[in-house]
Amino acid sequence: MASADDVTAHPLGDAILARAAVLARHTDVAPADVPPGSATPLTVTYLTPAHRACAAQLVQWMRDDGFDEAGVDAVGNVVGLYRGTDASAPRLLTGSHYDTVRDAGRYDGRLGILVPMACVRALRAQGRRLPFDIEVVGFAEEEGQRFAATFIGSSALIGRFEPRWLDLRDAAGATMREALRDAGHDVDAIPAIARDASRYRGFVEVHIEQGPVLVDAGVALGVVTSINGSVRFVGEMRGVACHAGTTPMRRRRDAATGVAELALFVERRASAIPSLVGTVGIVQVPNGSINVVPGRCAFSLDLRAPDDALRDALVADVLAELDRIATRRGLTYVLDETMRASAAPCDEALQQRWRNAVAAVGQPIHLLASGAGHDAMKIHEAMPQAMLFVRGGNDGISHNPLETISAADAQLAVEAFSHLLAQLA
Amino acid sequence: MASADDVTAHPLGDAILARAAVLARHTDVAPADVPPGSATPLTVTYLTPAHRACAAQLVQWMRDDGFDEAGVDAVGNVVGLYRGTDASAPRLLTGSHYDTVRDAGRYDGRLGILVPMACVRALRAQGRRLPFDIEVVGFAEEEGQRFAATFIGSSALIGRFEPRWLDLRDAAGATMREALRDAGHDVDAIPAIARDASRYRGFVEVHIEQGPVLVDAGVALGVVTSINGSVRFVGEMRGVACHAGTTPMRRRRDAATGVAELALFVERRASAIPSLVGTVGIVQVPNGSINVVPGRCAFSLDLRAPDDALRDALVADVLAELDRIATRRGLTYVLDETMRASAAPCDEALQQRWRNAVAAVGQPIHLLASGAGHDAMKIHEAMPQAMLFVRGGNDGISHNPLETISAADAQLAVEAFSHLLAQLA
Repeated sequence: MASADDVTAHPLGDAILARAAVLARHTDVAPADVPPGSATPLTVTYLTPAHRACAAQLVQWMRDDGFDEAGVDAVGNVVGLYRGTDASAPRLLTGSHYDTVRDAGRYDGRLGILVPMACVRALRAQGRRLPFDIEVVGFAEEEGQRFAATFIGSSALIGRFEPRWLDLRDAAGATMREALRDAGHDVDAIPAIARDASRYRGFVEVHIEQGPVLVDAGVALGVVTSINGSVRFVGEMRGVACHAGTTPMRRRRDAATGVAELALFVERRASAIPSLVGTVGIVQVPNGSINVVPGRCAFSLDLRAPDDALRDALVADVLAELDRIATRRGLTYVLDETMRASAAPCDEALQQRWRNAVAAVGQPIHLLASGAGHDAMKIHEAMPQAMLFVRGGNDGISHNPLETISAADAQLAVEAFSHLLAQLA
Repeated sequence: MASADDVTAHPLGDAILARAAVLARHTDVAPADVPPGSATPLTVTYLTPAHRACAAQLVQWMRDDGFDEAGVDAVGNVVGLYRGTDASAPRLLTGSHYDTVRDAGRYDGRLGILVPMACVRALRAQGRRLPFDIEVVGFAEEEGQRFAATFIGSSALIGRFEPRWLDLRDAAGATMREALRDAGHDVDAIPAIARDASRYRGFVEVHIEQGPVLVDAGVALGVVTSINGSVRFVGEMRGVACHAGTTPMRRRRDAATGVAELALFVERRASAIPSLVGTVGIVQVPNGSINVVPGRCAFSLDLRAPDDALRDALVADVLAELDRIATRRGLTYVLDETMRASAAPCDEALQQRWRNAVAAVGQPIHLLASGAGHDAMKIHEAMPQAMLFVRGGNDGISHNPLETISAADAQLAVEAFSHLLAQLA
């Protein structure tokens, strides 16, 4: 329980946590009985009633905070504008998403909307204007939970909303077009959302780290150097299923030990360079039996690196090793690339602003790459971007109701963001 | 198509193949359309109409061949007796099973009934009697397909039929007691099947190899040194599921790479001694996702060796390595032993008879262990036993309609068995 001292120690942080708690009342699925004191799982997917209630709450708060304009656009993004003194100066764009994964925590995405809102509230309270407009966006969709599309909100913002998405159906059979119409949106107005990148000085995004790096380092804030590029594959190793008792070891063509070798190579190769990660998340012998040598083994590859050259070298080495393993063991394989995303290196000048801001709030500067994708990765296609990570509690767990941040760290994020604004002014 | 020369080259082998083809007409499941010339899958499980038809056919042939007694016992075994000149001399017991796995071939088990029948037929045709009785048994059940019990026929023969089996139910809900009654058997007569081992000089069994060893060696017959002992485990490795993008390699506790290490150790350790086999047949990350580091991974272990000391050393090394892997990687595991069977070394004196017999028919002597279990493994609990393996075609494939043997090899098996009888006489 917070003491009176705690409450006064970081009022801006407390306010962030309080607002996140209010937003977390809106969820698609009424949670089952949750023991008192436990975190309540949260699910807010694109355009559901809970999702629209979150948008309305954000708009209301933006108005309360003193934004000059606040509303919901044709794709469901919440957009707030706080005017600067020079309407012709390039604007600063910031924000993150307010949708969630299933059984989520309450900070993933939302922290990056609430932090700049807190800064605008403080500016307005002091009667101050920046020399430039600041535009805070609550992106309607980033997680890809309801439809087979991701980054819907940020894609629309850079003019890359794909019309084919309108025909995608959710699990209940409703199309995205129907979902937009039911939410009162005008599908024909989506193209007009596209921003003219030349009118912006760039995009900054605050986000909970969703990993253990800052916890391990004992620091509250991290300056992101790059959003990792990634490639994903699904495949199957194929050998010969045979009798586990009667087939001598030298006569086997065991698909599972082939995949085992590959998984250990991926682990070893990615571990050799600290910024790389490589994962074999799917491993399955279909209908495997205790007494049958595996004839088939399904597997996946998820390979990520902070720049495309490192990523491509990792991919090339893994695929070459896969081929060597198969040849040496008399196996064959099929492999499909299911995803390829370029790395999004954060803009050097904006990164420097974040470094200055972190130093200004008295924190050590810790640089790290982002292993997960973020709205900034999509906005990167149109303008420079740079991200600030905030330490998560519980070992950095995310996509989980146990996701948490401390009020102290949230306060530091607000103060750092304010300092970034001051530098840009 | 066989030429006239082929037919006359190995008439005893041709007769074996012809009888196997006739038995293969009886199957539980009417096969779907099978292209002309293709092998028809075969399924004959305990006490079905097809199974009883096979028994009746075997009894009929035994009578045709000149057995002095032939009939079906209370558990469904077909038993034929060819009397020797000395009724007080210890008998020779031989035979194998006539039930099959699902979608089986036609030689697994049945070859070991048909070969000694051919020898008796030949003796009778020559008007010859051995100094001892020879008892040929077609075991009713070895494969464990219909009920959760195996070696039902051979168990009954040595007085180890388990009364609890009578209450086991098949997939349709029928108990074994009902199945026996419906087939006209008297359950109360089963205990009386038990043989007095002191009245027997031992048990010999001819069986198709069900593996590629004899094919590789280019020899038709193999003398079995031992039926491998085995231990089976099922287990689960447990680590921490986490984000494949945001969790640095050094922070992971990946259950699947732990199992990968174990599978490669099993492969390496078993390969180091030619007679050992070790298999990880089940490998599965439950609900595995491309972008989630595996938090759990199910696995199995099947470890076999020709004697219990070798087997136990293999098991000890694998379990120690499992523990080392888990400790080093910060994983935990659960492991259940699901089966443990002692090795059944073949009797030295009877093995020597088989070696002599193989040499006598002009074949090289090839010794090998049996990786699979056989009726001889059960009979071993009561009396000395020794097995002769016959080379399978198609790389030794078995438990598959592609299972085959050549007429030439079948002929050699009959000739070798006749020579074994001559030695014992």
